[in-house]
Amino acid sequence: MATSLSQRPVDSSHRRALAPIATPDRLLLGPGPSNAHPTVLQALSRTPIGHLDPLYVELMSEVQELLRYAWQTDNRLTLPMSGTGSAAMEATLANTVEPGDTVLVAVKGYFGHRLADMAGRYRADVRVIERPWGEAFSLEELEAALIEHRPAILAMVHAETSTGICQPMEGVGDLCRKHDCLLLLDTVTSLGGVPLYLDAWKVDLAYSCSQKGLSCPPGLGPFTMGPRAEAKLASRSSKVPNWYLDVSLLNQYWGSDRVYHHTAPVNMNFGMREALRLLAEEGLEQAWARHRRNAEALWAGLERLGLVLHAPEALRLPTLTTVRIPDGVDGKAFSQHLLNNHGIEVGGGLGTLAGKIWRIGLMGYNSNPENVDRLLNLFETELPRFKSAAAAAA
Amino acid sequence: MATSLSQRPVDSSHRRALAPIATPDRLLLGPGPSNAHPTVLQALSRTPIGHLDPLYVELMSEVQELLRYAWQTDNRLTLPMSGTGSAAMEATLANTVEPGDTVLVAVKGYFGHRLADMAGRYRADVRVIERPWGEAFSLEELEAALIEHRPAILAMVHAETSTGICQPMEGVGDLCRKHDCLLLLDTVTSLGGVPLYLDAWKVDLAYSCSQKGLSCPPGLGPFTMGPRAEAKLASRSSKVPNWYLDVSLLNQYWGSDRVYHHTAPVNMNFGMREALRLLAEEGLEQAWARHRRNAEALWAGLERLGLVLHAPEALRLPTLTTVRIPDGVDGKAFSQHLLNNHGIEVGGGLGTLAGKIWRIGLMGYNSNPENVDRLLNLFETELPRFKSAAAAAA
Repeated sequence: MATSLSQRPVDSSHRRALAPIATPDRLLLGPGPSNAHPTVLQALSRTPIGHLDPLYVELMSEVQELLRYAWQTDNRLTLPMSGTGSAAMEATLANTVEPGDTVLVAVKGYFGHRLADMAGRYRADVRVIERPWGEAFSLEELEAALIEHRPAILAMVHAETSTGICQPMEGVGDLCRKHDCLLLLDTVTSLGGVPLYLDAWKVDLAYSCSQKGLSCPPGLGPFTMGPRAEAKLASRSSKVPNWYLDVSLLNQYWGSDRVYHHTAPVNMNFGMREALRLLAEEGLEQAWARHRRNAEALWAGLERLGLVLHAPEALRLPTLTTVRIPDGVDGKAFSQHLLNNHGIEVGGGLGTLAGKIWRIGLMGYNSNPENVDRLLNLFETELPRFKSAAAAAA
Repeated sequence: MATSLSQRPVDSSHRRALAPIATPDRLLLGPGPSNAHPTVLQALSRTPIGHLDPLYVELMSEVQELLRYAWQTDNRLTLPMSGTGSAAMEATLANTVEPGDTVLVAVKGYFGHRLADMAGRYRADVRVIERPWGEAFSLEELEAALIEHRPAILAMVHAETSTGICQPMEGVGDLCRKHDCLLLLDTVTSLGGVPLYLDAWKVDLAYSCSQKGLSCPPGLGPFTMGPRAEAKLASRSSKVPNWYLDVSLLNQYWGSDRVYHHTAPVNMNFGMREALRLLAEEGLEQAWARHRRNAEALWAGLERLGLVLHAPEALRLPTLTTVRIPDGVDGKAFSQHLLNNHGIEVGGGLGTLAGKIWRIGLMGYNSNPENVDRLLNLFETELPRFKSAAAAAA
């Protein structure tokens, strides 16, 4: 039974002769992924090194430190999970939820529902409060819910990618401390593009992604956990019910011990290090101001064309703009036209907003005046044809 | 509370001014990651496209089809998990284990223990049979254990990366059908490099990684599930207790519906497509024969130098060779010398073999005669210095 003797005939029915990959250079102005910075793509294509190589271990520390800067946190346990943002989202719950814990999810869009679904899988007693898709929660509503449900964790989304709404966070952390619960925050569409102060806001758990404000391709999920969440993890009565995302194991690799856990996605981390390096080089204030400035130019331009923005101005995300599709226009046909004839991706609506809005991202490397002008020009010159087609068909 | 008004001062204590990344071109002859093929690295650095872009959807189908070829399976549910091999490993258990199910793990090295740890987290009744690190299981031992434990799943490792042992698989699947259990197989160090016939061997669940026989950087975890495992998933009484790895959700994205689940790591999949394209171009028989040929040259050369191979010849993996560290030699000092002065990574032992063996990988792109010669030369010229140093110190 030696391997050399176990040869059988090979079945070639699934063998295919493909040409080398030839994907086009799209401009990704949807909800993400966004375009990656050219030097990030260069970093990604370097020769891999070992995940326990001293040079890689040094790179890990750099990535961790720059993530702390981007998030404005001193959290020791700050690292990119070896999966996408959804994996990091799940990690926040998997590590801290014990069966029967009450998790209160403040839902105001698609990703709030995802948090609720995930928390249930970790056998939480999930409670949900909801706002319509396009609104935010007030401190009063949140405090009333904390009093009513007495949760162990309040989970909410800072930048709702499905609605374009930025949840004001000043004061929420104080309420959570007052009512003795952890604050878990989704920062997927805010990290790197929207003012974010995890420690000042008293956020205990947060996650994000690589492919939006950080200008890196998708594949890593930044994760952070503060001391109060660490204490909850340390007091668990059983193992974390998810091996891959178990922070008590991951901390032995990302902490000073450097004990092997899993083979790290080293090339993605090359890209992440370069993305964070560029953000630190620009400076957070400058990056936030740039996102704000370009978003304001987009908003003004869209309104000049008679389009209606879905989010009220005070709550608008600088990274993701939601625009209502005008009556009689087939929104999907227009975005397919942009993709197929102009190489530009713009997103459609999710859930209750499906067919009702477009979602335009100006994130990271893509947040620049040239992209704003290019897109506004296309809305000005091309959209009327889709309006008249709709009118003619009516 | 608009975002423009919520500015606080930025804390720059974690801001660091780093130089651009400058990692060296190592030759990775350890247990993985292995070097990636140059055109795979080029594919990785392409401009991302959207995870719902029609061109990406087409690429997904190509990746799935070529994975079926590489694994010799017709399984519909064949896809790369958006994490490393350990995530795919966890996916096989997370989807199929229900609380109380008996999972029998045949442990003959480090990664068998990992399977047992993971299965326990999904509340399986975990039973373990063990062989010393450097041996394989016989059909008689396996059948006796199936009769004794009556498991729902038998989990085992085809190519044990910690020992260099290839588990003979002919007949194991028949035993599992006879005793009505699923067969779950780790093919992390065999896919692309060692003869592997999932369907002929009646394997129900398998996983692998991107960074070994496939010549792609780490970051994706090929996963496959046959009809019997699908039936077990379909009959679950509750949701899969892991959202990110839930195949019933992932199948809506990777299947014909293409429903959004998570933002796919598109660039890693560009690399995976290129890696699988190269394997199909070479042909499985040719790739397996190449791995065998180069491994045999390495074995002969090492034995010529008086070194002892840890695995008996009939069970030796062509992808990973385990060599006993000679008495009196500091194995770690020699491998650090190779890394620091020659840019070559060679692995050390894990678990009971720590400090006792080196692990030499010749996988994917790295399995070529030039690498064999280069390494044998270094063992011939450099190792004696480490022997005499040890002798002098004694």
